[in-house]
Amino acid sequence: MHEKTKEFAKAPDAGLASEIDLIVAELGALRVSSLDARNRLDNPPRLPSRKALVGILDGLCAVLFPNRLGLALSEFTDGGIDYFVGHTLDITLRKLFEQVRLELGMVAGDDGKDTDLVQAKAVTRQFASRLPTVRKLLDSDIEAAYEGDPAARSIDEVLVCYPGITAITYHRLAHELDRLGAHLIARMISELAHASTGIDIHPSAQVGGSFFIDHGTGVVIGETAIIGQRVRLYQAVTLGAKRFPVDENGNLIKGNARHPIVEDDVVIYAGATILGRITIGAGSTIGGNVWLTRSVPPGSTITQAQAHAQTFLDGAGI
Amino acid sequence: MHEKTKEFAKAPDAGLASEIDLIVAELGALRVSSLDARNRLDNPPRLPSRKALVGILDGLCAVLFPNRLGLALSEFTDGGIDYFVGHTLDITLRKLFEQVRLELGMVAGDDGKDTDLVQAKAVTRQFASRLPTVRKLLDSDIEAAYEGDPAARSIDEVLVCYPGITAITYHRLAHELDRLGAHLIARMISELAHASTGIDIHPSAQVGGSFFIDHGTGVVIGETAIIGQRVRLYQAVTLGAKRFPVDENGNLIKGNARHPIVEDDVVIYAGATILGRITIGAGSTIGGNVWLTRSVPPGSTITQAQAHAQTFLDGAGI
Amino acid sequence: MHEKTKEFAKAPDAGLASEIDLIVAELGALRVSSLDARNRLDNPPRLPSRKALVGILDGLCAVLFPNRLGLALSEFTDGGIDYFVGHTLDITLRKLFEQVRLELGMVAGDDGKDTDLVQAKAVTRQFASRLPTVRKLLDSDIEAAYEGDPAARSIDEVLVCYPGITAITYHRLAHELDRLGAHLIARMISELAHASTGIDIHPSAQVGGSFFIDHGTGVVIGETAIIGQRVRLYQAVTLGAKRFPVDENGNLIKGNARHPIVEDDVVIYAGATILGRITIGAGSTIGGNVWLTRSVPPGSTITQAQAHAQTFLDGAGI
Amino acid sequence: MHEKTKEFAKAPDAGLASEIDLIVAELGALRVSSLDARNRLDNPPRLPSRKALVGILDGLCAVLFPNRLGLALSEFTDGGIDYFVGHTLDITLRKLFEQVRLELGMVAGDDGKDTDLVQAKAVTRQFASRLPTVRKLLDSDIEAAYEGDPAARSIDEVLVCYPGITAITYHRLAHELDRLGAHLIARMISELAHASTGIDIHPSAQVGGSFFIDHGTGVVIGETAIIGQRVRLYQAVTLGAKRFPVDENGNLIKGNARHPIVEDDVVIYAGATILGRITIGAGSTIGGNVWLTRSVPPGSTITQAQAHAQTFLDGAGI
Amino acid sequence: MHEKTKEFAKAPDAGLASEIDLIVAELGALRVSSLDARNRLDNPPRLPSRKALVGILDGLCAVLFPNRLGLALSEFTDGGIDYFVGHTLDITLRKLFEQVRLELGMVAGDDGKDTDLVQAKAVTRQFASRLPTVRKLLDSDIEAAYEGDPAARSIDEVLVCYPGITAITYHRLAHELDRLGAHLIARMISELAHASTGIDIHPSAQVGGSFFIDHGTGVVIGETAIIGQRVRLYQAVTLGAKRFPVDENGNLIKGNARHPIVEDDVVIYAGATILGRITIGAGSTIGGNVWLTRSVPPGSTITQAQAHAQTFLDGAGI
Amino acid sequence: MHEKTKEFAKAPDAGLASEIDLIVAELGALRVSSLDARNRLDNPPRLPSRKALVGILDGLCAVLFPNRLGLALSEFTDGGIDYFVGHTLDITLRKLFEQVRLELGMVAGDDGKDTDLVQAKAVTRQFASRLPTVRKLLDSDIEAAYEGDPAARSIDEVLVCYPGITAITYHRLAHELDRLGAHLIARMISELAHASTGIDIHPSAQVGGSFFIDHGTGVVIGETAIIGQRVRLYQAVTLGAKRFPVDENGNLIKGNARHPIVEDDVVIYAGATILGRITIGAGSTIGGNVWLTRSVPPGSTITQAQAHAQTFLDGAGI
Repeated sequence: MHEKTKEFAKAPDAGLASEIDLIVAELGALRVSSLDARNRLDNPPRLPSRKALVGILDGLCAVLFPNRLGLALSEFTDGGIDYFVGHTLDITLRKLFEQVRLELGMVAGDDGKDTDLVQAKAVTRQFASRLPTVRKLLDSDIEAAYEGDPAARSIDEVLVCYPGITAITYHRLAHELDRLGAHLIARMISELAHASTGIDIHPSAQVGGSFFIDHGTGVVIGETAIIGQRVRLYQAVTLGAKRFPVDENGNLIKGNARHPIVEDDVVIYAGATILGRITIGAGSTIGGNVWLTRSVPPGSTITQAQAHAQTFLDGAGI
Repeated sequence: MHEKTKEFAKAPDAGLASEIDLIVAELGALRVSSLDARNRLDNPPRLPSRKALVGILDGLCAVLFPNRLGLALSEFTDGGIDYFVGHTLDITLRKLFEQVRLELGMVAGDDGKDTDLVQAKAVTRQFASRLPTVRKLLDSDIEAAYEGDPAARSIDEVLVCYPGITAITYHRLAHELDRLGAHLIARMISELAHASTGIDIHPSAQVGGSFFIDHGTGVVIGETAIIGQRVRLYQAVTLGAKRFPVDENGNLIKGNARHPIVEDDVVIYAGATILGRITIGAGSTIGGNVWLTRSVPPGSTITQAQAHAQTFLDGAGI
Repeated sequence: MHEKTKEFAKAPDAGLASEIDLIVAELGALRVSSLDARNRLDNPPRLPSRKALVGILDGLCAVLFPNRLGLALSEFTDGGIDYFVGHTLDITLRKLFEQVRLELGMVAGDDGKDTDLVQAKAVTRQFASRLPTVRKLLDSDIEAAYEGDPAARSIDEVLVCYPGITAITYHRLAHELDRLGAHLIARMISELAHASTGIDIHPSAQVGGSFFIDHGTGVVIGETAIIGQRVRLYQAVTLGAKRFPVDENGNLIKGNARHPIVEDDVVIYAGATILGRITIGAGSTIGGNVWLTRSVPPGSTITQAQAHAQTFLDGAGI
Repeated sequence: MHEKTKEFAKAPDAGLASEIDLIVAELGALRVSSLDARNRLDNPPRLPSRKALVGILDGLCAVLFPNRLGLALSEFTDGGIDYFVGHTLDITLRKLFEQVRLELGMVAGDDGKDTDLVQAKAVTRQFASRLPTVRKLLDSDIEAAYEGDPAARSIDEVLVCYPGITAITYHRLAHELDRLGAHLIARMISELAHASTGIDIHPSAQVGGSFFIDHGTGVVIGETAIIGQRVRLYQAVTLGAKRFPVDENGNLIKGNARHPIVEDDVVIYAGATILGRITIGAGSTIGGNVWLTRSVPPGSTITQAQAHAQTFLDGAGI
Repeated sequence: MHEKTKEFAKAPDAGLASEIDLIVAELGALRVSSLDARNRLDNPPRLPSRKALVGILDGLCAVLFPNRLGLALSEFTDGGIDYFVGHTLDITLRKLFEQVRLELGMVAGDDGKDTDLVQAKAVTRQFASRLPTVRKLLDSDIEAAYEGDPAARSIDEVLVCYPGITAITYHRLAHELDRLGAHLIARMISELAHASTGIDIHPSAQVGGSFFIDHGTGVVIGETAIIGQRVRLYQAVTLGAKRFPVDENGNLIKGNARHPIVEDDVVIYAGATILGRITIGAGSTIGGNVWLTRSVPPGSTITQAQAHAQTFLDGAGI
Repeated sequence: MHEKTKEFAKAPDAGLASEIDLIVAELGALRVSSLDARNRLDNPPRLPSRKALVGILDGLCAVLFPNRLGLALSEFTDGGIDYFVGHTLDITLRKLFEQVRLELGMVAGDDGKDTDLVQAKAVTRQFASRLPTVRKLLDSDIEAAYEGDPAARSIDEVLVCYPGITAITYHRLAHELDRLGAHLIARMISELAHASTGIDIHPSAQVGGSFFIDHGTGVVIGETAIIGQRVRLYQAVTLGAKRFPVDENGNLIKGNARHPIVEDDVVIYAGATILGRITIGAGSTIGGNVWLTRSVPPGSTITQAQAHAQTFLDGAGI
């Protein structure tokens, strides 16, 4: 080994120290100017923690399905299960309370701290009281998945394996939080589902019972979508917005109704793209890869051929 | 701070206790009625554990590729590698045996417990004896990926980086278990691959050697699909079912052959959708976004234009 | 329990030992022949570790956004933040240096060991010096996401929730490493982003500031793609290659320019497929599901209808 | 670097592999001959696990003192505490059951497996039913420590800080298990206390309420010792055996009464050594460093001077 | 397996559930009556956490000796060390602040909450400002150990190996906290040292520089002991109280000066017991196993023979 | 809450930042001057890691007693045990090699780096080759413990429970390393045993087979002690040095023979103190609390009375 390289081997970081000082200073300046731009210099808010939410969701799933999703499920049977559910619920709600408090504090700024506590507590309690309802809806979803997939061998397989079940479970929990005003936490939960399933459901979307998504990768369901009972979707279905209207200053108008309404008993096959505040009538079937930007009456069957014909007439596709 | 809010700060859970009692009771009642509906009240089965399977797959990958995927690979060289492989295989098989036993017990109910042990042992052993064959197949897959992707710089890059390799590795392991009757575990392994790669291959699908999926997100390969040697797929390709036939009572008929047969040396470009028990003849090329529901002879080249023309004639797309 | 099954219960692994010996031997032989085929028998290289890279990326994200992505962000405020950033940067760079050294050593073989150290050090330092620039670009991306999505309620929500932000953050870091010659590490980072977001950006792709991908699942951006300023993409957009030219021996030609150039201020809607070394002129809008293999001039608006018409004329789609 | 040393640097384990083979073989042979010597070759028993017992003791302490020793005590208040206690008790008893089963199986050999289950279950249940009694005794011990130590500022300090409290807590739990026949587990628990406090109480020793050991390092209390109510010991006190009688074959006679009886309200100061089946009468005070091998009547005060005088007469000290 | 035992095997916890309910209820009643007895029913205080203190001590030791005791010391050199020290100090002080707040809140009851924050902050700051002084004292202790032990080969060995150094490090930190009013935390730290070294130094004891304890097991140094410069102790030395005076009600008088004063340059050999508020004059040597209850002038050499003679005259030993 | 305290609650660390800067600077200056004093400023050495040694000892114990001390012992039986032993030995030796290299490098300074590698490798290999011998000695120790303690119920209990077995196991391993020149690591291992058992054996002490220490707390065995076959000790026995001779400069002479020689078949009861380079003749019995500074012939029985008489004549005890 040559003298010079030997030295590097011994101290591969010689000189690195002062460089680090420089980078730390540059990054610090960027941070300050970024906070300054948003008038946040005095109090950069603490945000809810993705990692904490992962733990909270594990807890909630264990509470909802202790026999099947509880981490330590082999360790007890009948007798201890209520202790397990009660204890897990207890500590999970306290953790959720902390996260809700962070979000409310972030939104309100520090002055609202006392009010935040009261409100965070109310949100947590009301959320907790909705859990049995969520369980009932999820039972209907699991049943729908079992009945709708010829490859499903058992209810248990559905619960343990299907990404569509994970996505709807997270969505139903996120939706309750979104309704109660914890929008950021709700969105973070949606994205946890998105990351592990490829299914992207905005927490504000309204989804009826007995809902089933098969395969699921690439599904996108937008903020103002409304989905009825017993609806079935396949992978890569989009329920999206057609246009993003802007106000007089050219800024996006946020929150207006811009996604489809899907009525009861609709089936939408893989790759279909449905855009805008249109209505898919009850009992309709939308074929694979269909591109649809107009409402269809109840009982419709839409194929690519029909859709394309329409598309050509419209010059649509944006 | 006002008196009242101060109190909340001190005891953010006052009153929460009795509410928890209520929720625990409601959830318990739902659990009972759900088990009751499936005649499972007496013995809610213990299911195989997703978390345990993650550990088992890490072990199997380390056994198959100890130099490259073994977690602690830097800690030894030639001498110790067989001890590492043998020890890892030993404990991994024992863990797998436990999971297989759980699945068999769940399927059989408790009465079959003794038989389960014998059968679980047989499944585990036969699975183990297939590992060298699986390794050989995976070597052919890695080679195919290296040769098929202009962006691949080395065999090592392919093994370490490519999601398609992860997906086919998991699939080949899951497929062996599926063949041996551990259907649920096999499916859970498929979904682990699906979650981390966006590639969804049903464990029953039959896949020949030198198989390569590039990018991969959104690929779906159905339960009864049969894929030959040297087939190459790109992202968002679906090998799906066209229809789900029902029996005289309106229930789905499960398990019948309903997915495509893809013969040797076929290439299917991104977004192509191939549905039904059709055959793609050897050496064919299916273009991107093609929608195909009819068999094509060997050596075919199918483009969107051709496919669409056909689609219009058929009124297909469901 | 019958005698025989009882025995299995007691020793579920009787006989397993010698079977393991066999499997270990078979796998060992396969390993040797695989290394032999690549002239690697003498020195199977140690590869960079995916697990180590996960830790390095956590460290880099904490350094770039300590208030929002630092793991322990609640534990300090202004005073300690520079210590946190400096310390995290220090240990993260040392870990990165180790990984770079592994990659360089793998590429060079052992003879280059001393040179590797010098070069690995240079790569690490130059990478570090680029971090402030990366932060500035990411600030522009976050701003673009906030302005481009009507569902985004705050800058914080964008940073914490949006998979598109994760993907571009990882890409910008990977791209710097790729430029400096750490191609494998760069690719591994890309695949970490791909696995958690479904967005697949090759680290060599060049991406301008204020870049935004919404939803993102299924997006693929190829190795030689060039993207300008203020470009916006939606889910399932492909910027791919149209053909893979081979040399006179039938081997793929690697590395040539084969992916699109997307100029400033272009918007590409969901599912659009853009293939080949074509140019999308500045300010153009490409509609959803469009299939495009020809350049379009600045300011174009391309819909499915137009694209299909063209496709039919071309017989394209491969 | 010289060629030769460079080689070592590259492969510091060359040749190590075959050496390991040799050592593994030698150790294997020693193992076999050691098992053979004890007729254990066919079934080397699985022993209870020290690590598992550490977890069980944490659980039991949390159940006994949930407010003060529960690991996560900050996470709940009144409402959830019974869920916490019930859940912790439930899983802790199941873990204990496993360990008891291992011990009983080890003692009985494999043939007794079925009986072991029944007996292990009975032991666990009876142990559980003793927990409230143990708590009452420990409350008296804590009170005694607070009253007996001028340095103790609060009951809480005593519970959280005093090694004597740890030792007696572990002893009282171990003693119950010892009484029920789980001798090995009991002994392992004693040694856990010994390791962390330096206080060595044999689990068979009988200890009355309101017992206090101050400082404690070096205290040894033998197997057949009997200690009354309100006894106080200081560091390095030994309640030991004077002689170890052997049978006609020269083997130690095991289990006979050979340690002191200490009646109610006795105080024994640091370093005192009390040997043999003698009785220290109620209310006596034994001075520091006293060496005592004869019974003393109630109300005695024994100093070194008196003890030494006696010792010289006896020529004792063995 | 017989029917009956088989059932146990299947459900080893049948009936356990209702038993658990009973035990939980009994333990709950005991808890309430215990809190009631101490008027703590309304607000059982949260105590400082032993586990948190372990982490805090690791942090403080890393700050004091980053080169030698920092957990990750191999990961940086000169450049990063101040970032490491600063960051570790920052988060360690915040954790300490939390523990101090808990102790102050426990002592004060809830009404003092606001004051607690202010005071806890002051305690933490003043403690931090003492760290350089503590480091200087510890340097003198390490030097003394190296010079005083013929078996010590290097300063490094002393720092890394000697339990006496661990004990004095913990003591000097605990002593600062004790002086500032965090008595319980200080005591908990003492007991952490006691548990790992067998050396029991009350945090209120005053210990001068260049202090060395060799071997150490069984050393006890009482609350009001005062130790000068350059004192050396061996294992099992006690600096204790001779009597525990009681007040007119028979209760112990707490806190009065009752332990020895050991002047500069004294050596006390193994097993010596020194009791009461006596003074060991500067430069004295106390022999092994000596029992001493009277002051000795500077420069004394006390042997067992002399001490025993005195003891016989006094009839001491209590 | 008052304005002022509220502020503290919000920012309990205001002002702390600059204080931390100060403390970091002061500690840094102390570090530099301390290194400077020892001419270590240029290269503060990296020391072996206590934490790493804990892992290495776990590994070695698992290798020596895989059935009984292997962490995962329940996971395999006959077949896999050699893989387990070989794999554990392999990775444990590599970790040990790293630690030895650190110690040798620390002793030699950086110039010796290449030589260190060669020597560290030699030390590790020679150590490994001694493991079967160590196992044989430990088998004799365990047998001795079982035969020597009337409370021991089984060989297994002895291995799993007895602190004396832990101490001698660690000692025998440390002694081999000490003999091979890894003095610091050896000492660190001794102190690990000391911390968990209260038994302090210097790694250089020579200990024959069938050695048993009962209870053990407070036992000290010095650097140059020599112990024969079948020796038995009880708690608080000291085999120490009588005097520490200094050279002409007043510095301690290090390393000379200054501790007792204990011949075969000696029993030494609790609390006995044996000092200086004296010889306890074979087959002797030393009574409890005896203070002995003169050699005794084989077959002696020494009681306190005899010893004291001698002590008075000598005026010994220092």
